[in-house]
Amino acid sequence: MIRVLVWNEFQHEKKKEKVAAIYPNGIHQTIADFLGKEEDIVVKTAWLDMETKDCGITQEMLDETDVLIWWGHAYHQYVPDEVAFMIRDAVLAGMGFIALHSAHHSKPFRYLLGTSCNLTWRESGDSELLWVVEPGHPITQGIDRYFRLPEVETYGEPFVIPTPDKLLFIGSYSGGEVFRSGCLFERGNGKIFYFQPGHESFPIFHDENVQTVIRNAVRFVAPTYRRMTKCPHIRKLGDERGYIIDEK
Amino acid sequence: MIRVLVWNEFQHEKKKEKVAAIYPNGIHQTIADFLGKEEDIVVKTAWLDMETKDCGITQEMLDETDVLIWWGHAYHQYVPDEVAFMIRDAVLAGMGFIALHSAHHSKPFRYLLGTSCNLTWRESGDSELLWVVEPGHPITQGIDRYFRLPEVETYGEPFVIPTPDKLLFIGSYSGGEVFRSGCLFERGNGKIFYFQPGHESFPIFHDENVQTVIRNAVRFVAPTYRRMTKCPHIRKLGDERGYIIDEK
Amino acid sequence: MIRVLVWNEFQHEKKKEKVAAIYPNGIHQTIADFLGKEEDIVVKTAWLDMETKDCGITQEMLDETDVLIWWGHAYHQYVPDEVAFMIRDAVLAGMGFIALHSAHHSKPFRYLLGTSCNLTWRESGDSELLWVVEPGHPITQGIDRYFRLPEVETYGEPFVIPTPDKLLFIGSYSGGEVFRSGCLFERGNGKIFYFQPGHESFPIFHDENVQTVIRNAVRFVAPTYRRMTKCPHIRKLGDERGYIIDEK
Amino acid sequence: MIRVLVWNEFQHEKKKEKVAAIYPNGIHQTIADFLGKEEDIVVKTAWLDMETKDCGITQEMLDETDVLIWWGHAYHQYVPDEVAFMIRDAVLAGMGFIALHSAHHSKPFRYLLGTSCNLTWRESGDSELLWVVEPGHPITQGIDRYFRLPEVETYGEPFVIPTPDKLLFIGSYSGGEVFRSGCLFERGNGKIFYFQPGHESFPIFHDENVQTVIRNAVRFVAPTYRRMTKCPHIRKLGDERGYIIDEK
Repeated sequence: MIRVLVWNEFQHEKKKEKVAAIYPNGIHQTIADFLGKEEDIVVKTAWLDMETKDCGITQEMLDETDVLIWWGHAYHQYVPDEVAFMIRDAVLAGMGFIALHSAHHSKPFRYLLGTSCNLTWRESGDSELLWVVEPGHPITQGIDRYFRLPEVETYGEPFVIPTPDKLLFIGSYSGGEVFRSGCLFERGNGKIFYFQPGHESFPIFHDENVQTVIRNAVRFVAPTYRRMTKCPHIRKLGDERGYIIDEK
Repeated sequence: MIRVLVWNEFQHEKKKEKVAAIYPNGIHQTIADFLGKEEDIVVKTAWLDMETKDCGITQEMLDETDVLIWWGHAYHQYVPDEVAFMIRDAVLAGMGFIALHSAHHSKPFRYLLGTSCNLTWRESGDSELLWVVEPGHPITQGIDRYFRLPEVETYGEPFVIPTPDKLLFIGSYSGGEVFRSGCLFERGNGKIFYFQPGHESFPIFHDENVQTVIRNAVRFVAPTYRRMTKCPHIRKLGDERGYIIDEK
Repeated sequence: MIRVLVWNEFQHEKKKEKVAAIYPNGIHQTIADFLGKEEDIVVKTAWLDMETKDCGITQEMLDETDVLIWWGHAYHQYVPDEVAFMIRDAVLAGMGFIALHSAHHSKPFRYLLGTSCNLTWRESGDSELLWVVEPGHPITQGIDRYFRLPEVETYGEPFVIPTPDKLLFIGSYSGGEVFRSGCLFERGNGKIFYFQPGHESFPIFHDENVQTVIRNAVRFVAPTYRRMTKCPHIRKLGDERGYIIDEK
Repeated sequence: MIRVLVWNEFQHEKKKEKVAAIYPNGIHQTIADFLGKEEDIVVKTAWLDMETKDCGITQEMLDETDVLIWWGHAYHQYVPDEVAFMIRDAVLAGMGFIALHSAHHSKPFRYLLGTSCNLTWRESGDSELLWVVEPGHPITQGIDRYFRLPEVETYGEPFVIPTPDKLLFIGSYSGGEVFRSGCLFERGNGKIFYFQPGHESFPIFHDENVQTVIRNAVRFVAPTYRRMTKCPHIRKLGDERGYIIDEK
């Protein structure tokens, strides 16, 4: 059973009518709904202004989470550094992390990758073709050569990230821009998937192909083994376990 | 002084009027002409049916070449395996290699990368926007955020190559396709640059931005040091502990 | 069920008493024996001079193989190029490939990676410590911080391979050399694992840790999806802008 | 002219007699001395408790620095986050960064890489053999197959870093451990080199081979171009199809 936690800023849905119409219970709930139908997945949700401290995320919750999905946009700075570091460390210990759309600028994503994660953007309702670069990868299964989203926010290169361990999708926008729309990173024992679609003003998380990719990604980044890598201070060579025996 | 050898199939130019009109002396000569203007570059050319054996390429020529530029399309199989392996070994020893357009299917490129190097394609005279992914890289200097080619052959993903060490350009075509149009690989002591533009039916090598990229690439893949890596068979350890004597 | 095919040169065992004493039925049989005990694995074997054509490997066999394990040393050139290319293409389509020890110089491995795969070596019966670089990786599960092999053939850097997608083990020899002893590559839809231990003169494949790594590797490189990537030639665009029709 | 800034914690030298005997004017001064002999290099130094604010580093100093060399060990937390982020951003804009020995745990290094950068260690005065993995790389020129340091602090795998873009050296210790002792990373427009040798208790920076590697590394990570990558917010498309106007 893969235990997924979907975190959402959950502000636009409460402040903008257009967004509320698309996601009446929040983006997190839409994602939780389609993931929750899977037999091998259980889902919880959290959001920025839950009546809990720490923006809805505690160490206890992370300890019970296999894959954390993150959607944030305009309130990244309200996530405390302590929480962002807790998440980073959980990923280094093996927890999967999926950053959606404007979460490219979220603290957990930036702290894990180290770069600015800046990108070029344009808000125009362009359509996007998402092309599969690696048709044999588990995350792209069930997707044809490409799929089309009729209205998106346009993201463009340069996207200031470390070279991804694997590039899975390239997005092509009707205005001509391109973007590395599906990127996989491995950090410590954890896997990180960045996926570009997800602007709040369009019903992107209702799209069947988007849901397929997220479902695949949850299964792919879920850890088989989860523990922080031990880097012991060896005091002497010798016969105690953990010490190193050199018999030569 | 960087010693460049430009190799061209040089068949379309002799068989198709349209191509001859664009490249009356062959694609190789157009490339040699703009590179030859540089003070730090000297250029030679070779082609498939030169009056020499081995498709115009000999070991002696490779020994005097710092960067080999390759354009081939319909006659890849006429390049003998022996010559392709000679080129591969020269690259492993440090010679730079630039594969242009349909040279993705050339023997030297495929033998160096190991994969099929297949790709999707469409001949329609689409326009292509080439977007810079790495604006700080030496090969993309002098190029704005993107440049446009009004008429090209469309290449599309999937492009069956190993993950490039560095992705420098992504192409976006007016028909909607995308392609990893500028890819850098390191193999042995050599650098390999693949660059997508260059269909013979359009005056692409007359384009100023294409020329800038090729000039930059020549300087980037040119070797500082050139020699085959030695992997000695060690017959015994020397008499001082930890020191290894190569007796070969 | 993972269908494994273990291929072995099977010459040293028939020609050298010392080797025959360790592997009376051949290295392939020892590997097949410990893998065959697993509930999710079925094993077949093949060798160079089986009474079949093509060094024991046919397309039909590859079609029924999920993971091909390869041990070869002194007779690489007796494997026909046609067979090596068949194997390469099966890997590009998703078949897993595990190259053991001196298979670094085997044709399938070299043709997949493109480089010389040369390395430095010394035959001295050194001991080797194999250190885990990635403790969270599925292939290193069940292995402590390192394990020790009392007698091995020493391999040393430089090892002329493309930078591995993931480095899993580094070997340290009692004579002082080091080697990238466990390397993972992805090519096309297939995964390739190179593992250094396995000199025929020592009972290395009887070692429990070596068996654990090979078992883990079989499960890791086994394909979830297997098919050659399609790269269609698109003849025309459909009538709706942005949609592409594959008429093939 | 490459402008190098060498930063050193400069505490052990003032507090421990043994260290003072080896580096009477500080590790930074020893490094500045051998680098300062090069015709193409000018060197400045800075240290933790200089009589300037911000641990000796200001934005003005970074603006005039091409390559920052960093040695820190026990006082990492005294470097303010603001300074560490300033350094990170300078690297993303192209400044070279060389982290020596225990600087694996320095804030600038960790913030750039995103992982814990933990490692295993043992203080025993082992000897270390540093083996060249990439003999064709500019940073390994002038180094034989390996070089030996008679006394070092032992570092061991696992080293919790992202997979390096290039692994240049592997260290082998007389106690049996191994370590990725020379690692290259590219982040944004900047290059980062981590080099393991440098324990304060041994005269490692007086070693000729260590000096060769650091000299080579300075020249390799020095930026050709230096500027922060621009990621403009595009407000509208221009009037010609496919052309994009940046109105910012």
